[in-house]
Amino acid sequence: LAAGDTARVQELAEPLHPADIADLIEQVEPGERQPLAAALGAVLDADVISEMNEVVREQLIDVLDPGQVADVVTQMETDDAVAILEDMDEEDQAEVLRSLPADERAAIEEALSYPEESAGRLMQRDLIAVPEYWTVGQVIDFLRQAGDDVTSDFWEIFVVDPSHKPVGTMRLSLVLRSPRNVLVTDVMKREQTLIPVDMDQEEVALRFQKYALISAAVVDTSGRLVGVVTVDDVVHIIQEEADEDILRLSGAGDGDINDSVREIVSTRLRWLVVNLGTAIIASIVIGFFAGTIEKMVALAILMPIVSALGGNAATQTMAVTVRALATDQLTEANTRRTILKEIRVALINGAAIAFLVGVAAGLYFTNVHLGLVIATAMIGNILVAGLAGVMVPLTLDRMDVDPAVSSPVFVTMTTDVMGFLFFLGLAAATGLTG
Amino acid sequence: LAAGDTARVQELAEPLHPADIADLIEQVEPGERQPLAAALGAVLDADVISEMNEVVREQLIDVLDPGQVADVVTQMETDDAVAILEDMDEEDQAEVLRSLPADERAAIEEALSYPEESAGRLMQRDLIAVPEYWTVGQVIDFLRQAGDDVTSDFWEIFVVDPSHKPVGTMRLSLVLRSPRNVLVTDVMKREQTLIPVDMDQEEVALRFQKYALISAAVVDTSGRLVGVVTVDDVVHIIQEEADEDILRLSGAGDGDINDSVREIVSTRLRWLVVNLGTAIIASIVIGFFAGTIEKMVALAILMPIVSALGGNAATQTMAVTVRALATDQLTEANTRRTILKEIRVALINGAAIAFLVGVAAGLYFTNVHLGLVIATAMIGNILVAGLAGVMVPLTLDRMDVDPAVSSPVFVTMTTDVMGFLFFLGLAAATGLTG
Repeated sequence: LAAGDTARVQELAEPLHPADIADLIEQVEPGERQPLAAALGAVLDADVISEMNEVVREQLIDVLDPGQVADVVTQMETDDAVAILEDMDEEDQAEVLRSLPADERAAIEEALSYPEESAGRLMQRDLIAVPEYWTVGQVIDFLRQAGDDVTSDFWEIFVVDPSHKPVGTMRLSLVLRSPRNVLVTDVMKREQTLIPVDMDQEEVALRFQKYALISAAVVDTSGRLVGVVTVDDVVHIIQEEADEDILRLSGAGDGDINDSVREIVSTRLRWLVVNLGTAIIASIVIGFFAGTIEKMVALAILMPIVSALGGNAATQTMAVTVRALATDQLTEANTRRTILKEIRVALINGAAIAFLVGVAAGLYFTNVHLGLVIATAMIGNILVAGLAGVMVPLTLDRMDVDPAVSSPVFVTMTTDVMGFLFFLGLAAATGLTG
Repeated sequence: LAAGDTARVQELAEPLHPADIADLIEQVEPGERQPLAAALGAVLDADVISEMNEVVREQLIDVLDPGQVADVVTQMETDDAVAILEDMDEEDQAEVLRSLPADERAAIEEALSYPEESAGRLMQRDLIAVPEYWTVGQVIDFLRQAGDDVTSDFWEIFVVDPSHKPVGTMRLSLVLRSPRNVLVTDVMKREQTLIPVDMDQEEVALRFQKYALISAAVVDTSGRLVGVVTVDDVVHIIQEEADEDILRLSGAGDGDINDSVREIVSTRLRWLVVNLGTAIIASIVIGFFAGTIEKMVALAILMPIVSALGGNAATQTMAVTVRALATDQLTEANTRRTILKEIRVALINGAAIAFLVGVAAGLYFTNVHLGLVIATAMIGNILVAGLAGVMVPLTLDRMDVDPAVSSPVFVTMTTDVMGFLFFLGLAAATGLTG
């Protein structure tokens, strides 16, 4: 197919939804993406490019010259254009900006002036705002006259005062339902969620979720309406932020299956080296007890059980804590309660596992003393795991460090070190022998 | 505050958004939720209850009698009512249904007849559908006359043929912009995403995300329009599904910080016991080499490094794979490519880590042989980790088993067992001694 017949490729792709064409490009071998994109020609328009996976898009954009990028960007809405430009290196970005029409350049430059991942980058600047003293009829006439001059991509109409500060929002459904002579102020809802232009996108997403918003007004520091965030952009953010947490907790960075081998190696290797460090610390702890292990090899045999269960118990608590923090469910008010609950859970689970392991080890090695030592170590380690699993992410969050990135290292290290200390230390202290 | 003055509590809560009142209830101690709910009285309406965290809601609903639940449910939209009823036990559910007005009961019973987590449970039945031959003016008049008799919770109007099959969708913004005499067929978009009533909610969410939908028509098996899914419900699902993956990968089940201690203990303990099983298998492997370890305790000291790094490398790959599967990014077309890429990454990372560990161990224990053994074991184990991390979730997914739930057990077991086998087996086979 991609072996020559350009016209045929375009004919086949033409009826597809832009998102499906984007998918198609992502699915072919990385080496074939370039030729396929070339063959698609005009079918590969701004819509397709904004639908594309970020990683694949960056690879494609990299080989276009700034003039071509500028052409594409001109056809996009501000928020999509910003998404493309913010990933380019500064030089190319400046060159693309120079090739844009003045008004568009100004809009994008302003958006880029807001911090990354803020509402300012996310918002669209095309919106419908009407004065309070209008009637429904006037609104409808205004829209009919404006026709294609205004965006059709709006779901709510904002009502503003003379200084362009939002005073309310009207659902289009209510506008449609109301007779022409009804005043805008009687249709609009006064309570509305305003998004400050510098609010973090994660926070924006939480607001949308909490209040079931379709769109929301973005205001600058003086409270003036500057843009609108719509739910379709937020949907992507919710997915991205949750994905980030999964991947970071697992040490895969911001991994994407479209990353190149070199990118994957560099993120993952960094993490493996950090973990090598913590594993060495655990080994040093074991080293202290080399003499004890030499006297009783059963200790070495049981070591993985101590570390595996401590690690697992900690990971469970850590995942719940990290997500509760990310979704604003863990607040000052319930922190103490949550910690106390984790302690109770850890004591019960610790006791159950300790009983199982203690009895099994005692019977298998026909050594009651060994059974008691591992059982005690288990309760201690699962309690440590529960505490570390909740305290470490909480502390990191209070210090404004992303708990998903750094928690696993600290938590695993704590459970490994404490687990081996409890187990081998107790064995040594009580003079355990085979 | 909650110490008596009911009127004051209601006065304070009155101006709050339902979602904020719901938050308030979630934030207080579990024991105080009941009295607070009682004090809130009428302020605690259907809106507040639908906004509440599922776990907290269930706890509150449990103590209400079926008559009260029926009162609340009557005021809700079908989808919210279904969300409450589906969590109740069958007896209570039947009793609530009996207390409902006939039409509402029928609607809810129909929704409950669709599989759990399907579009049928998620959809609203209140929607606006108009015939193709109408004009924009007729649509507006129809809505103005109907007034409060029809829902105001719609963002698109569906156009249907005489057999009530959807033929297109109209954005409200376009309806507002068009002159009265324009035909509905000239405003509507013919291409639309139809959601079969039995489609899984995760699939529904992916469609919404991919095509940036605000609402979508739900059709029954004969293609007739039966309901509408709106994006605000989908937003919750995206969050939930991603959260589920994080928590399941971490063995915390569907953990929620509002779960009771008993629920937490039971989900987590089950997982810990499964992991105890896999840890015991790892211990048995070590047991085979007890003689080798007795001769050289350095092996026991280095064991945690082998298992920790294998486990970490596997978790990285597994997280990326699980998310790629969940978001439909890993398809037949790129499976082979992804596996080959993982092998290359594993070989590079394995070699790097093997070099570091080999040199460090060789120098520390002044034993070149030991350094070579651990380095070789490391490459082998990281390669196994990379393969297991991608193959296990893929295989489970092909077998229609949720990869997030079961992958970690198999993957960790594989890396532990293979790691110890490589390391201790190689040490024994090459006659390593201290």
